[in-house]
Amino acid sequence: MKRRAVTVVLVLSAALLGTCFQVPNAEDDAALLKQAQMLFSPLPKALGPEAPVPSAQEALGKMLFFDPRWTVEGNVSCATCHQPALYGTDGLSKSIGVLHRRHRRNAPTVLNAGLNFIQHWSGDRNNLEDQVDQALVGAISSGHPDRAAALARIEAVEGYASLFRQAFPDATTPLTSANVANAIAAYERTLLTPAPFDSYLRGDAQAISPIARNGLRHFISRGCASCHHGSGVGGQIFQKFGVREEYWNATGSSEVDKGHFEVTKDPTDLYVFKVPSLRNVEMTPPYFHDGSVPTLAGAVKVMGRVQLGVALPDAEITEIIEFLRTLTGPLPANFATAPALPASSKRDP
Amino acid sequence: MKRRAVTVVLVLSAALLGTCFQVPNAEDDAALLKQAQMLFSPLPKALGPEAPVPSAQEALGKMLFFDPRWTVEGNVSCATCHQPALYGTDGLSKSIGVLHRRHRRNAPTVLNAGLNFIQHWSGDRNNLEDQVDQALVGAISSGHPDRAAALARIEAVEGYASLFRQAFPDATTPLTSANVANAIAAYERTLLTPAPFDSYLRGDAQAISPIARNGLRHFISRGCASCHHGSGVGGQIFQKFGVREEYWNATGSSEVDKGHFEVTKDPTDLYVFKVPSLRNVEMTPPYFHDGSVPTLAGAVKVMGRVQLGVALPDAEITEIIEFLRTLTGPLPANFATAPALPASSKRDP
Repeated sequence: MKRRAVTVVLVLSAALLGTCFQVPNAEDDAALLKQAQMLFSPLPKALGPEAPVPSAQEALGKMLFFDPRWTVEGNVSCATCHQPALYGTDGLSKSIGVLHRRHRRNAPTVLNAGLNFIQHWSGDRNNLEDQVDQALVGAISSGHPDRAAALARIEAVEGYASLFRQAFPDATTPLTSANVANAIAAYERTLLTPAPFDSYLRGDAQAISPIARNGLRHFISRGCASCHHGSGVGGQIFQKFGVREEYWNATGSSEVDKGHFEVTKDPTDLYVFKVPSLRNVEMTPPYFHDGSVPTLAGAVKVMGRVQLGVALPDAEITEIIEFLRTLTGPLPANFATAPALPASSKRDP
Repeated sequence: MKRRAVTVVLVLSAALLGTCFQVPNAEDDAALLKQAQMLFSPLPKALGPEAPVPSAQEALGKMLFFDPRWTVEGNVSCATCHQPALYGTDGLSKSIGVLHRRHRRNAPTVLNAGLNFIQHWSGDRNNLEDQVDQALVGAISSGHPDRAAALARIEAVEGYASLFRQAFPDATTPLTSANVANAIAAYERTLLTPAPFDSYLRGDAQAISPIARNGLRHFISRGCASCHHGSGVGGQIFQKFGVREEYWNATGSSEVDKGHFEVTKDPTDLYVFKVPSLRNVEMTPPYFHDGSVPTLAGAVKVMGRVQLGVALPDAEITEIIEFLRTLTGPLPANFATAPALPASSKRDP
């Protein structure tokens, strides 16, 4: 498991940087910036395959993302659980999908999801395309028995056929489940949220406040950055939730979720989850895979306890939160602004 | 019933204009424009009370409109049934609300709803404020047993308290159900969609195509405008659905809806509904109070049959639809663009 090896190196380097170098005060801002630049990287301008994706594909993907008509009762879209107004989440502990079915886990934000090395809390989706493709037949996301049923709904909306032809001009059959996945994934990769921390990482040491910089110091020296690193400030590795004690004792979770173990059946993957990106974390409560912790302060406290084995002082938590707030960017216009969908000419089921 | 008296006058004047004056061809464009200007009026620049509404109130109303957290399970907002991407509807025959409850009627668009003389298909809501106020305790829209439960949810979101204070600076208790209604209604009144037909009514006879002008001629001469008139091209009066024959025979409706009779218990109100505005009608299928007719052509045909007692020729229907398309305006930016909601600090129920 390569990603684990990386973790170890990063834990060590974070420990070295944080503990050995001890950068406790404001005059060492330049050193802090250097540390941060080693651990994190600013958001790229764009994500995606080497060849540029046609904008018609992104535009189509956006429509499909916002269109509820292709799910089984026509009332749930991707945007139901990934709402713009709630920063790409639904604000619930556990989502409610088609047919009023409750999801087992908390809906992760779709913002910056293209940065994740794998998708979903348990890592059971390889990438965005895989996520969409499986969502087409998901019991909670779609409710259809097969992909053909979902595609038939899309085909039933006059107007989509030509949009697929424009988006996939070289395809003999443009409207396929693979292309639904390609289009939605292409759209989702555009949903990046540059934040003050990116300006900081690019060298503007004053782009975040002195308190936020203190929070960043704690974040590094305590070891948070050993998992939450990279351009997503997370989303790069798997990690066991509950390194120092069982997580459910700290979160009050109502059930024990075995995480990545469900995918691999490997005992070393028990309670292992994808480390979530912390971008916009301030805007996406409640927290953790089961939404069991409602506040950010509570979440930071739990992390200190179960991952690091420390009771973080309140003052430190406050400063860490101030740092986490620098990861909030404005809602991308391409997400906040709904597309006008082609009107349906068929009736709903 | 004053609105009925108005109807009669309008039916007569439409008959006079349409039938007696007979304006059959393109050289009479100026006469057509004059007729149209007598029957319709362009959208006002703004709607609302004489005193201007503070923009903080509209902004707050927009947040509450898009916020699902105040309904019983936290998963349904006003925007669930009135989605921007579907022109303020949900595209369903009958909406699905909280707790997966199915509404009896089709969700009317919220766009231009401020133009309606009364709200809802059956006219059981006096105005937008009344609509919102009752939605706070609606079995399908909210699921809460009382207004206090809905308000408690809004209060639980840190950030709303100060937004209410800003929106209602003179109120001793700003966060009340009345002010939720005031704010959302103020927001909804901003949702106007100027369209090519407005330019036409303002005197630009070429703002709509010759085919659309033919459609407008049919629309007037057949008598459609006797009910669908004014700035909303509808929304101004009640009318019996099924003047010439029982509507359900033409629509294939699965149940008989008694309409305004349910409100008044007056037998003359049997099968009486608010005449809907036809603005953006092209974008808001399926049609009628029960969404029983999926296509616009089908809806026009039904109207000819049950309201006018005529089988409209297909060519005429095509031209009428071309006219109806001139009632489509772009999605208002204030609707298409989701607000960033204050993050919740409390957990969902």
